[in-house]
Amino acid sequence: MAKIPHRLYLTEDQMPTAWYNLRADMKEKPDPMLNPATGKPCVEEDLYPVFCKKLAHQELDNDTRFVDIPGAVLDMYKNYRPSPLCRAYNLEKALDTPARIYYKFEGNNTSGSHKLNSAIAQAYYAREQGLNGVTTETGAGQWGTALSEACAYFGLPLTVFMVKASYQQKPFRKAIMHTFGAEVIASPSDTTDAGRKLLAEDPANPGSLGCAISEAVERAVKGDNVRYVLGSVLNQVLLHQSIIGLESAQAMELLGEYPDVVVGCAGGGSNLGGLIAPFARDKILGKADPRLVAVEPASCPSLTRGRYAYDFCDTGKITPMARMYTLGCTFTPSPIHAGGLRYHGMAPILSKLYHDGYMEAESVTQTNVFDAATLFARQESILPAPESAHAIWGAIKEALRCKEEGRSETILFGLTGTGFFDMTAYESYMAGTMQDYVPTDAELHKSMDKLPKIPGIQE
Amino acid sequence: MAKIPHRLYLTEDQMPTAWYNLRADMKEKPDPMLNPATGKPCVEEDLYPVFCKKLAHQELDNDTRFVDIPGAVLDMYKNYRPSPLCRAYNLEKALDTPARIYYKFEGNNTSGSHKLNSAIAQAYYAREQGLNGVTTETGAGQWGTALSEACAYFGLPLTVFMVKASYQQKPFRKAIMHTFGAEVIASPSDTTDAGRKLLAEDPANPGSLGCAISEAVERAVKGDNVRYVLGSVLNQVLLHQSIIGLESAQAMELLGEYPDVVVGCAGGGSNLGGLIAPFARDKILGKADPRLVAVEPASCPSLTRGRYAYDFCDTGKITPMARMYTLGCTFTPSPIHAGGLRYHGMAPILSKLYHDGYMEAESVTQTNVFDAATLFARQESILPAPESAHAIWGAIKEALRCKEEGRSETILFGLTGTGFFDMTAYESYMAGTMQDYVPTDAELHKSMDKLPKIPGIQE
Repeated sequence: MAKIPHRLYLTEDQMPTAWYNLRADMKEKPDPMLNPATGKPCVEEDLYPVFCKKLAHQELDNDTRFVDIPGAVLDMYKNYRPSPLCRAYNLEKALDTPARIYYKFEGNNTSGSHKLNSAIAQAYYAREQGLNGVTTETGAGQWGTALSEACAYFGLPLTVFMVKASYQQKPFRKAIMHTFGAEVIASPSDTTDAGRKLLAEDPANPGSLGCAISEAVERAVKGDNVRYVLGSVLNQVLLHQSIIGLESAQAMELLGEYPDVVVGCAGGGSNLGGLIAPFARDKILGKADPRLVAVEPASCPSLTRGRYAYDFCDTGKITPMARMYTLGCTFTPSPIHAGGLRYHGMAPILSKLYHDGYMEAESVTQTNVFDAATLFARQESILPAPESAHAIWGAIKEALRCKEEGRSETILFGLTGTGFFDMTAYESYMAGTMQDYVPTDAELHKSMDKLPKIPGIQE
Repeated sequence: MAKIPHRLYLTEDQMPTAWYNLRADMKEKPDPMLNPATGKPCVEEDLYPVFCKKLAHQELDNDTRFVDIPGAVLDMYKNYRPSPLCRAYNLEKALDTPARIYYKFEGNNTSGSHKLNSAIAQAYYAREQGLNGVTTETGAGQWGTALSEACAYFGLPLTVFMVKASYQQKPFRKAIMHTFGAEVIASPSDTTDAGRKLLAEDPANPGSLGCAISEAVERAVKGDNVRYVLGSVLNQVLLHQSIIGLESAQAMELLGEYPDVVVGCAGGGSNLGGLIAPFARDKILGKADPRLVAVEPASCPSLTRGRYAYDFCDTGKITPMARMYTLGCTFTPSPIHAGGLRYHGMAPILSKLYHDGYMEAESVTQTNVFDAATLFARQESILPAPESAHAIWGAIKEALRCKEEGRSETILFGLTGTGFFDMTAYESYMAGTMQDYVPTDAELHKSMDKLPKIPGIQE
């Protein structure tokens, strides 16, 4: 076998032309989304006020195994894809580990993250349906940036509700979205009922992803032929993100490799769900037995400390309910936490895989995450996003285990993005002023005890 | 011929393993660097207090055609190279031009620019010589970031003098350098004689590249086994940057293409000198006749309005003197100018090529540059650095000429980096508050009339 390159790029001809829908191969499907008005499983029509039709279909389609990627989407993908599969030679050397560490790097695009993969698909379908525009929320700003790029490309108006704390801390993120032509509003805002309600309770509310989602959904539902698009959690998003896993699996096959462990960071679950998709398939079908590991922040521990229950996807409780690991839709991690991945729940597909024992989960405090990020940056010359650094931490942990056990395993992790807009967090880490935050049980109970009651399903 | 991909990556096996020294093929060499103390041509030993030995040799070596890239440098190059050669399909479509537009994208690395190519080489040679550290200057921060990455990788202490205006406007740049372990000092500072002198004249001096160079050189010369490294202008830097052109030429050959026009932005000349190297060789040797076009800011027009004369490379007048197109080493462009490329001179190699008619030059105002940047960003999904956008403007101009003339030419331009740290400039452009600045003849004379007098050479 030839020497494995530092970075392997598939050619455009080798790029996947269809997304992979893991649900088609899951022996038990995720529980159905419920309409909050009726408590009954959603049908496509229930979702039409919120999502455009093609996406509503993808959201509920548990059967179609491969979904063709539209040509216009592929064309824009080629502005930055295929993304490289990297061998972390320098990191391996620094750790003195017998493990072979690979990472799929999704940060080589202007949005700085994997989020663009789904943004392009959603903007495309919205334009195809002839919409007047779309709305969305953004936390750290990666999703908003990605969607701005996609909407600029397809000529579609976009309004972004940006979590207020980020809006204030990351003015440059806002500026990039402006450059790509988007309207950006700090959330909670006085432009929606959901926002006004929260501001009435606490004018200094720093916002949360859940709240920004509520505002964006409300704006879409009340708008004139406007729909809402979401960058994570949803089945449709994990479908689009499967391109990460498909490219990874194909590249590893070209190298004669197969991962013993696949590690990803987990907030809403979009990157992890995409990365592990083909490997979870192999595991479900009994073709291989890779370990699948989710790493989440100790400050927002939905998998490791949440409940597997029906909950709203948003703070305003206007979205459909999904069964997932959740800390309760009113949970907001402390502002001390700078490491991203702040969503209260976890993608239903990943929640189901975890519940059924196909996936493991770990949580980590942010100073440990930044230790990993800094070591990685200096060795691999990439400044990782704090979110991505959760996966780096997980991969390093596995590599050190391999060293202790004298095992030469193959580790694959997802490096979802770059940290250029998280320098305030890096500065506090470098200055030694970064603090860790781990919610108490009582704090978590406060929000988890308010999960919705659904007669006959969740009392 | 197969369809040309949006992005072509050479494989690692195809990567150049030697830099190309254009001076070896120039019929007339650039005029020799002069020792300011004696007025005589520098010999290597004259440079030893400032540069490490290998780099001093490369600086004066007009003969060696190819210089092997050390293995450790190649290893770090593979953290981000080869860089892609991109076909701007979407931009072509938006311009409705028959031209085929290619760009070599050097922004896919954490430093965000091509500067890393020379930073790695210089940090490597410094470590090989057993230095205690290196110093440098940085303007927009790309060079400082690049060198921080390289020094972190090779374990070499680094002090960066950062132009004060940038230091204040770009706190995140500073933070990235910190994360990679560098010391960052705002220039002019009170840590050097050169800095103290300027501060005494004007405590509010916003700094300039020339001044930061003076401080960094002074610190190196007075330090204990410390040397200075520079990210542009020098012959050695253009040598290292030749990898941009070599990869471009090789990729174009694989595609069956050859550029009719090569366009690059020009500040100190590092990117342009690297990009055009193999094409300038073909032109000099009569093998081909590509047009070579430098685009510089109207606010700092060294090629289009400067004098071809001996000048100091720094404001403090402590470096050797080089013959180049210069506005005078005391020239500082107005702070209104946000588009980078603020250096008072131009690389001696490029100055000579321009003087001898091998290269053309154009200047452009910054609102035009940002028009081009925004159009490009929305079509190609890359947010360009303002510096790079000068080349985009030039390429678009050529493409529109092709359209008018009905000619299907092949245009290659250098996209040197990304604009994540230039969002203040983008915001002012988007808000319509960006102003243009073109110095008057009187302003230019003020600094050009102070060029050094050298008996027998320049009276």
